[in-house]
Amino acid sequence: MSLPPIITLLTDFGAGSGYPAQMKGVLLSAAPDARLVDISHDVLPFDVLTGALLLEACAPRFPPSAVHLAVVDPGVGTARRPLCVVDPDGRRFVGPDNGLFTPFLSQGSRAHLLASRDVVPEPASATFHGRDLFAPVAAWLARGGDAARLGPAIGDPVQLRWPGARYAAGRVEGECLVADRFGNVLTSVREADVRPLSGPLEVRVAERRARFVHTYGQGERGELLALVGSGGRLEIAVREGSAARLLGDFRGAPVTLGPA
Amino acid sequence: MSLPPIITLLTDFGAGSGYPAQMKGVLLSAAPDARLVDISHDVLPFDVLTGALLLEACAPRFPPSAVHLAVVDPGVGTARRPLCVVDPDGRRFVGPDNGLFTPFLSQGSRAHLLASRDVVPEPASATFHGRDLFAPVAAWLARGGDAARLGPAIGDPVQLRWPGARYAAGRVEGECLVADRFGNVLTSVREADVRPLSGPLEVRVAERRARFVHTYGQGERGELLALVGSGGRLEIAVREGSAARLLGDFRGAPVTLGPA
Amino acid sequence: MSLPPIITLLTDFGAGSGYPAQMKGVLLSAAPDARLVDISHDVLPFDVLTGALLLEACAPRFPPSAVHLAVVDPGVGTARRPLCVVDPDGRRFVGPDNGLFTPFLSQGSRAHLLASRDVVPEPASATFHGRDLFAPVAAWLARGGDAARLGPAIGDPVQLRWPGARYAAGRVEGECLVADRFGNVLTSVREADVRPLSGPLEVRVAERRARFVHTYGQGERGELLALVGSGGRLEIAVREGSAARLLGDFRGAPVTLGPA
Repeated sequence: MSLPPIITLLTDFGAGSGYPAQMKGVLLSAAPDARLVDISHDVLPFDVLTGALLLEACAPRFPPSAVHLAVVDPGVGTARRPLCVVDPDGRRFVGPDNGLFTPFLSQGSRAHLLASRDVVPEPASATFHGRDLFAPVAAWLARGGDAARLGPAIGDPVQLRWPGARYAAGRVEGECLVADRFGNVLTSVREADVRPLSGPLEVRVAERRARFVHTYGQGERGELLALVGSGGRLEIAVREGSAARLLGDFRGAPVTLGPA
Repeated sequence: MSLPPIITLLTDFGAGSGYPAQMKGVLLSAAPDARLVDISHDVLPFDVLTGALLLEACAPRFPPSAVHLAVVDPGVGTARRPLCVVDPDGRRFVGPDNGLFTPFLSQGSRAHLLASRDVVPEPASATFHGRDLFAPVAAWLARGGDAARLGPAIGDPVQLRWPGARYAAGRVEGECLVADRFGNVLTSVREADVRPLSGPLEVRVAERRARFVHTYGQGERGELLALVGSGGRLEIAVREGSAARLLGDFRGAPVTLGPA
Repeated sequence: MSLPPIITLLTDFGAGSGYPAQMKGVLLSAAPDARLVDISHDVLPFDVLTGALLLEACAPRFPPSAVHLAVVDPGVGTARRPLCVVDPDGRRFVGPDNGLFTPFLSQGSRAHLLASRDVVPEPASATFHGRDLFAPVAAWLARGGDAARLGPAIGDPVQLRWPGARYAAGRVEGECLVADRFGNVLTSVREADVRPLSGPLEVRVAERRARFVHTYGQGERGELLALVGSGGRLEIAVREGSAARLLGDFRGAPVTLGPA
């Protein structure tokens, strides 16, 4: 017996706004056995970078057969293209071509326009493509549709600037990205960037020093900490406190890591 | 094989309050194969009009076999009647008789009291009819129960004042209703009210002028716009901004639409 | 045909943070037919008492075969033990040993360490045991695993101070605990504590008087009320208002109930 397909949803619509529910009505009408899982509907309106980071953290935890429907879309109603990205593991992403799928755009990925009138509906509304365009396509894929039939592959999907880390003067340099609900600040420094360093480490972030630890439990209450978080990124944290509040306007602030 | 039944939930309890979860425990105990979909649990406490507008926007997106369980109920514990409404398409709504189902009360609808002691439990609590009365009835309907067996049909279900639009001096007049998370303000003017008008249109709302457009993308950032939104209602919006904040105390404020 | 297993989730991660979604990806990868139900992800960070009270109110509403995965865990990454509690009805709870399962620790309960390397994974992250340790165990239990195989039973699971009520001078005395979204304040006085009292009752809470009623509908708008709520606890409420706001710093404040 084949397993029911999984469709995840990520939007900036607000969980209780009724818009995700309308999408779910469409999804279950077209794919009645689909399992629907919310990734988030609380992305700040139009914050495409946070949406992309959430997808990066969450999508790989689902079976590769899952379809990921994501709509953070300041450009709805303009000429921005509707897209389906298929990553090298076969994971499928459906949504606007605005960089939301940047973490999954690599050498082995494909990006198909949603163009074929056999499969892709003409949206009934100019403002709610999540319901009228992307949800029907996601349901069709979940029921076994082949992404290649959606439309032509394109070579230039929009990509966000995707901050990384670089080595300079024996230190790793990156930047602060976004905060989670606990006030932990995610940075552009990845676990692999940290691994080559050894011995006691010192972290500087936005003019402050943070102590490098392996778990929150190693910090004192209120102390500024840096650690490799569960998503594989260097995080800045305050134990039982908020690094985001302590650091203030952190987005883009430099973070460096090197020998103490 | 028959499809699993769908039950949607709409309340003002708060998604994380534990109250929706208790309802879901009851629903899955009685109807283990039911698919549960949240419409919203974030309706402002006791805001029956917003609840009714959310139902109007969401319920029609689900298969007509779905059961819609809705509890926004300032009168719990008083003599207000418990109800099941069946609309002409066979959609079933279960909840308090306080106007929450107004959009689905039409010529061809039926409204049954929840009265039959064979089916309807005596609520264990005086304060949580969502869990103790409405959820068991919704589960029973989802498993194939016939609404007519719940109790006598009544001819006078409570109806909210349901603002519409009227023509005067060549213009359409309506009023502002509620705002969504983006600060877009829904009005009582429907797509069908706008359709007869042609040529360039001018919109006035609460002493201001809004430009009539077809999509948000046609507006300038910060500009006050009016457009027919995804729910088929005239909406007032600010591109990448909040019309609700700009307009201030908008509820009931007049909106008119006519030749420029 | 056996019914699909139910797994509930309770965390302080925030519904839209992506962390619950990562746990769900792990759960559905390991137990593809599991029904996932959110109890709450909005517990205040590290508020173990509120988490325990939510579990107390919600878990008994689900079939006893359900598995309850709960993570409110200020001590993640420290030496606190990972646990599975099985209550006398066979309900299973998976999470940290920090008192979160206090309401289900009674004479007939068992508590097993999550220790067996045959079943319990070595967490990939030091900070996200919800995803890397507790979710895999919950999925394994949901698929029929026997809690006794998880590890040795322990006799000293952590228990929260669990306020109750006592009789003094003909009155019942308890204390205020937590508030819900409506501003209703839960107390440590249970329905069974109130039952022996008869005749007109008077309630005093934090220097104020509240009128004892059976339903909210018996109160005047704005009046301070006390009633036995849907969870079987004495609640302090203001009809269409907020008792929490009225009472101010209510946590631990005394509440007494006696003849008027």
